[in-house]
Amino acid sequence: MSEITKTAEAAARAKRDSRVLAAIAAETRDGALAKIADALSARGAAICAANEKDLAAARAAGLPGPITARLVFDEKKIESAVTGLREMIGLEDPVGKVLLRRELDSDLLLEQVACPIGVIGVIFESRPDALVQIAALCLKSGNCAILKGGSEAVNTNRVLYGIIHEAGVAAGLPESFITLLESRAEIGDLLSCHEAVDLIIPRGSGEFVRYIMDHSKIPVMGHSDGLCHIYVDKAADISKAVRIIRDSKVQYVAACNAVETVLVHKDIAFALMPPLLEELAGKGVEVRGCGRLAEIHPGVKPAAEEDFRTEYLDYIVSLKIVDGAPAAIDHINTYGSHHTDAIITEDDDAARLFMAGVDSAGVYRNCSTRFADGFRYGFGAEVGISTGKLHARGPVGLEGLVTYKYLLFGDGNIVGDYAEGRRAFHFKDL
Amino acid sequence: MSEITKTAEAAARAKRDSRVLAAIAAETRDGALAKIADALSARGAAICAANEKDLAAARAAGLPGPITARLVFDEKKIESAVTGLREMIGLEDPVGKVLLRRELDSDLLLEQVACPIGVIGVIFESRPDALVQIAALCLKSGNCAILKGGSEAVNTNRVLYGIIHEAGVAAGLPESFITLLESRAEIGDLLSCHEAVDLIIPRGSGEFVRYIMDHSKIPVMGHSDGLCHIYVDKAADISKAVRIIRDSKVQYVAACNAVETVLVHKDIAFALMPPLLEELAGKGVEVRGCGRLAEIHPGVKPAAEEDFRTEYLDYIVSLKIVDGAPAAIDHINTYGSHHTDAIITEDDDAARLFMAGVDSAGVYRNCSTRFADGFRYGFGAEVGISTGKLHARGPVGLEGLVTYKYLLFGDGNIVGDYAEGRRAFHFKDL
Repeated sequence: MSEITKTAEAAARAKRDSRVLAAIAAETRDGALAKIADALSARGAAICAANEKDLAAARAAGLPGPITARLVFDEKKIESAVTGLREMIGLEDPVGKVLLRRELDSDLLLEQVACPIGVIGVIFESRPDALVQIAALCLKSGNCAILKGGSEAVNTNRVLYGIIHEAGVAAGLPESFITLLESRAEIGDLLSCHEAVDLIIPRGSGEFVRYIMDHSKIPVMGHSDGLCHIYVDKAADISKAVRIIRDSKVQYVAACNAVETVLVHKDIAFALMPPLLEELAGKGVEVRGCGRLAEIHPGVKPAAEEDFRTEYLDYIVSLKIVDGAPAAIDHINTYGSHHTDAIITEDDDAARLFMAGVDSAGVYRNCSTRFADGFRYGFGAEVGISTGKLHARGPVGLEGLVTYKYLLFGDGNIVGDYAEGRRAFHFKDL
Repeated sequence: MSEITKTAEAAARAKRDSRVLAAIAAETRDGALAKIADALSARGAAICAANEKDLAAARAAGLPGPITARLVFDEKKIESAVTGLREMIGLEDPVGKVLLRRELDSDLLLEQVACPIGVIGVIFESRPDALVQIAALCLKSGNCAILKGGSEAVNTNRVLYGIIHEAGVAAGLPESFITLLESRAEIGDLLSCHEAVDLIIPRGSGEFVRYIMDHSKIPVMGHSDGLCHIYVDKAADISKAVRIIRDSKVQYVAACNAVETVLVHKDIAFALMPPLLEELAGKGVEVRGCGRLAEIHPGVKPAAEEDFRTEYLDYIVSLKIVDGAPAAIDHINTYGSHHTDAIITEDDDAARLFMAGVDSAGVYRNCSTRFADGFRYGFGAEVGISTGKLHARGPVGLEGLVTYKYLLFGDGNIVGDYAEGRRAFHFKDL
């Protein structure tokens, strides 16, 4: 009960401070980012010491190697985080942009102006660099951030939070521009703060994200699954297809934008399969094929129906022969996760059909699904990738962290005058 | 059980057809709107006959006069609906707009393109003209619509749906571009179709909309409350203030954008109250005042705390004296519904402070809150007003009914080349 009160109170404070932060000038926000960068640089030793404690605890607890590796936050990582902060200062201010300016009448002016969303709760994985990056994205976009990091990084996160909070407040930001939650129980408390928290961004396993989405009235932005497809059309260039499938599968198998299912047009299967199977075998990728593939390549392990619904995040790919683009589109819209799907073809009509018909955040032609990323799109930084269809879709940068309000400037104008014909709107965009 | 299956099956058909509709050209969609307008004109007699049945049933059931009045759909209303349809044909196509075109590399082009959301469920009040308007908005924006109208209008809605469906399919639209649900039980079934339905737009009483928001995993766009405020600053022009408050309160008391609470700066209360109280009394408006007002105007009925949380939708207004703009902003952010709030002032600094600090979809200066409306903003048509902060905020026109996807066009590009430094992005907006 006291835990609930603590989180709810922190969220209410963040809500109040979010209105102060929303009205703070870009120079102050950018100035705070600079001060935070300086402070992180200056206090590298304290950060490394805290990180050593987390690493020792992780080793003592026998945590798996990849998790321990992600925990590392040494001088090199600090430097890279500081560089990221300094680059963010240079990005255009997403707040205050006038999106529409329209004269409704000679003395009645409508403006649609970008503004911060308010309070954003971010629940993220073990990497401590995520804390720095997310805090900076929220600050740059004028939002108060409530952060909950992985428990393995508790010492590192606490020191990072202390440095960021102190530097930000010294630069003129309100106290609750950033809040750190430390216990797992606080996640549940946070999810029930729908009056104070405007948006939740969960990052982590599909299961975890689904849990968050199912247990909060607060809007959630992100993705639970990344079940990406590549469709090799009959008019594909085979060497491009092999190269793109290899990159999409093995360039980083644990990524949400790695390919999990390859769909192959029946007319190109005979020509494509030998080089593709050889390439994948050479990279240690296990292929699980549909019945039609098993007929022509009896050596391939058969895929179960469940395989086509599985995000392997591993050196495994499922493979299915289809009759053409419409069947590929149907398969993707039915089994996919609306993340990123690609067609390999030299045929413009097939590409157009596929790109219009596939209902995903990213639909690609002749390139790797691994390009689905805010940095690779040139957004400078990303807070996550959304597979929802509303607000922001695909990689989400600073623009996904703002909303807008309508400002209307009059001089005593009343609706009665327009309703009763004494005056008329003239709608002129300026 | 069979009812659940029926709605879920209809939603799944709509989902399939939504992919067909999304790829249909603007000319076909506009052509269908024209055919629908023609068909509604030609079959006015059948529509009026069905409407007579609904009106007779409403009278027999002793429904209140205002509900019966909203049910009327006669030749004049048909003509006005047809005019609305023809005007919509002339509006710019919201689908296919390129929002961003960026070269990531010389042979790698990123496009962010507006596209339909997919399947939209709209649950609306008794007015049959709402069916025509919502069907047209969804069609123009390339979305499949699942509609549930008020049960009092069942005969009128059935005939309207039949005409619209027949004309649309004849014009080349897929069968399920529009679906009509008729029983109340189907609303619950629809709310559970989160795999097929992308967005729910409920229109009706606050209680009803809250119920919808609390009982579906599907994103909901709209508003449950319209608790709008006007703050009269100490630098207000008193005659403007009186005129704007009168219009905001009585021009249409049942509207969500009518004012419910007036906040008055303490330094202007003595000068403002006599003309304001006289004007409101003359219009039959009951005033409920805070303790400070009761001290200076003992005749005013005292307001309870609950009054400041009440959307009267009636000839009642609550009134509170505040110490200045910061107190007014706090009150609005605490008690308001984030719909539309106005300041009356001749002081630019006070206006700036208020407009930055109030966290609402619309923040106005020196004009009536009743301007919060898609038609008055020049959107041509509106599907509703959103008090949520994500996706669309305030009056929602066609632009709120589309999302976007990212298209990436390559020529064999793989991420490995960029990750390993063989190639570099150059990010050039075109």
